[in-house]
Amino acid sequence: MLKTIGGGVCAAKGFSANGIHCGIRKNRLKRDLTMVFSSERAACAAVYTTNLVQGAPLKVTRAHLADGYAQAVICNSGNANTCNADGIQIAEKMSALAAEALGIRTEDVVVASTGVIGEPLDLTPIAAGIPDLAAGLTADGNVRAAEGIMTTDTIVKEAAVTFDIDGHTCRLGGIAKGSGMIHPNMATMLVFITTDVNISPEMLQKALSSDVRGTFNMVSVDGDTSTNDMVTVLANGLAGNARIEAEGEAFAAFMRALNTVTVALCRMIAGDGEGATRLLECRVSGAPDLATARTVAKSVICSSLLKAAMFGADANWGRVLCAIGYSGAQVDVDRVDVSFESAAGTISVCRAGSGVPFSEELAKAILSEKEIGILVGLNAGDAVATAWGCDLTYDYVKINGDYRT
Amino acid sequence: MLKTIGGGVCAAKGFSANGIHCGIRKNRLKRDLTMVFSSERAACAAVYTTNLVQGAPLKVTRAHLADGYAQAVICNSGNANTCNADGIQIAEKMSALAAEALGIRTEDVVVASTGVIGEPLDLTPIAAGIPDLAAGLTADGNVRAAEGIMTTDTIVKEAAVTFDIDGHTCRLGGIAKGSGMIHPNMATMLVFITTDVNISPEMLQKALSSDVRGTFNMVSVDGDTSTNDMVTVLANGLAGNARIEAEGEAFAAFMRALNTVTVALCRMIAGDGEGATRLLECRVSGAPDLATARTVAKSVICSSLLKAAMFGADANWGRVLCAIGYSGAQVDVDRVDVSFESAAGTISVCRAGSGVPFSEELAKAILSEKEIGILVGLNAGDAVATAWGCDLTYDYVKINGDYRT
Repeated sequence: MLKTIGGGVCAAKGFSANGIHCGIRKNRLKRDLTMVFSSERAACAAVYTTNLVQGAPLKVTRAHLADGYAQAVICNSGNANTCNADGIQIAEKMSALAAEALGIRTEDVVVASTGVIGEPLDLTPIAAGIPDLAAGLTADGNVRAAEGIMTTDTIVKEAAVTFDIDGHTCRLGGIAKGSGMIHPNMATMLVFITTDVNISPEMLQKALSSDVRGTFNMVSVDGDTSTNDMVTVLANGLAGNARIEAEGEAFAAFMRALNTVTVALCRMIAGDGEGATRLLECRVSGAPDLATARTVAKSVICSSLLKAAMFGADANWGRVLCAIGYSGAQVDVDRVDVSFESAAGTISVCRAGSGVPFSEELAKAILSEKEIGILVGLNAGDAVATAWGCDLTYDYVKINGDYRT
Repeated sequence: MLKTIGGGVCAAKGFSANGIHCGIRKNRLKRDLTMVFSSERAACAAVYTTNLVQGAPLKVTRAHLADGYAQAVICNSGNANTCNADGIQIAEKMSALAAEALGIRTEDVVVASTGVIGEPLDLTPIAAGIPDLAAGLTADGNVRAAEGIMTTDTIVKEAAVTFDIDGHTCRLGGIAKGSGMIHPNMATMLVFITTDVNISPEMLQKALSSDVRGTFNMVSVDGDTSTNDMVTVLANGLAGNARIEAEGEAFAAFMRALNTVTVALCRMIAGDGEGATRLLECRVSGAPDLATARTVAKSVICSSLLKAAMFGADANWGRVLCAIGYSGAQVDVDRVDVSFESAAGTISVCRAGSGVPFSEELAKAILSEKEIGILVGLNAGDAVATAWGCDLTYDYVKINGDYRT
């Protein structure tokens, strides 16, 4: 019943989007300003970075969403509007300009920025661009919108699904940016999700907060938690289902749809991590509880040593054991099994905490694929978790070693 | 009164050392087996990695040091003897062979290994080498000993000081390895310190445990806590001072000497981190308490993004703010000041959480030096802390991307 469809952030009824080049980024071929608009005011949930240093747009968005509703998203790339003395005023003004062009309330605008930290954000190109941006909103503007939030991202990141709630066809889709900037400073992640499901702001927030624990919070490109990370979901109710006000079948169907899209975006973000050549997916099973499973999966995905080994297609499983050992989770390391998996096959490299003989040739073939599974069995329970990351490459160093100046 | 001297691990009275090539490493020009010997049984303190996956030698050493005394160190490079089913027996046998050659008890041997994880350690070359190793112990064998524990380390790491306790001339010195292996798996750190100070095992352990919190625990090359990290101190009492049994002036003098040597070794380990071109020293001041100061300093030093920026001599201070923000410490980010410092000068780049105009030219000159200070002022108290790290370079990726196979 749940089916993947096209349309990204415009897949759901009543949503239009656009992305233009307004002049923040020097390269005129790169879009740098995105708008997403709902024809109806929509319930809106959000989660924000836990970094104590937070971009001014996050603070403004948080205030705007205090009532649980919004109708539009405005987001620029090329400058994070973070650590600037006048950042709040700039973000507020950017919201007001978008609201004016759309004929909505300023408080119904989600505002976001991504790019270099600590450089003043000049509103001039944004103010000049917003009228065109709003005028160009279309129901097939999803790719333009996805492009407008990209920085050093190498692929457009969007996903959408259709599903049913009580016989009503619903849609949910989203766009993401991650792991690159025009002057890259952070593995800044921004995700904007839209849906026509009818759901209360409270249940929408509950769904999002629960989902991100197993999705976006399980992605790491380089261990640096951004100052500007934000995920928002707009739900405008146009699917016509009975408003979801509590848990139950409809909520569960919504959660499944949300999770399908967020997992797809997670994989895109990790696989397109700065300089990455491979997507790493660590799947932990047999954990005594969910927290242990997640802690272990994330520790493995974050290990610089393992990431470098994966770049070299080196089956250096000792680094997996090492990362499990320092994860902070209570694990009986003498029970740990490790395998590597990809389109080329599966190979067991460690059983009960000790190495087992394996074919280096097969291991090399498996690890030379673009998507690598790192399977960790803890043999201590039933909990499972997945984390997504990427390899550590020369290009990561290059991208981040010489950008700002 | 405290003075830096030569002699490393042999600086203190009664200690001799040696390092040979026995055949664990393929390159015959590289020493791979080290021994340090005290003419007298010595009080011995140790700290071990907190990784749950621990090398077999650590487990054996821990058992040997249960009584607080030891007389010799045996350490091989080229293989970590970790995650091997027969690891404990191998480490125990290695200790017994060393003890036999020295005519001491097996329980008085500190045994250590460093290198690849999960490959069986063949005792044959070690057993064949130990008689020569022991026969070649000399009071000027410190450099050979330092070489025998090196893996991909590019410089010999040793330091020593002389100081007085109650008119008795004391000496304390040590050797370290860090950040490289012949088949590198871990930024494995091993430190062996020797001193002729007369001190009880309890006070020796107290001194070491206290010291490492501000020294070795404040070093990071890549965030991967090794399975084989270990620091030991042997104190044989030959300086003739009244035995240190409690805190007081003598203990304080000992602590200062120990700290001088451990800080010197920390700087060498960080500056010689895998692939590193620069030593980074983050000095945090104005923290409300020591824990906050240390947490912030370590978070900054561990940021992959900052490390890559330092490689590129890019004054990307937003990454310092970002790392402070996600450190977990409670910091008022609107009060944070950041400066960069080196032999070429000092430059303020951020005041009260916002950027200040600065000369990019001067910043580039400052960051192009080999030793970079990252000065963070929290303006919230009097506590200070220092952490040491290195830049993230192409060579780090190269070293760790293609080694094991």
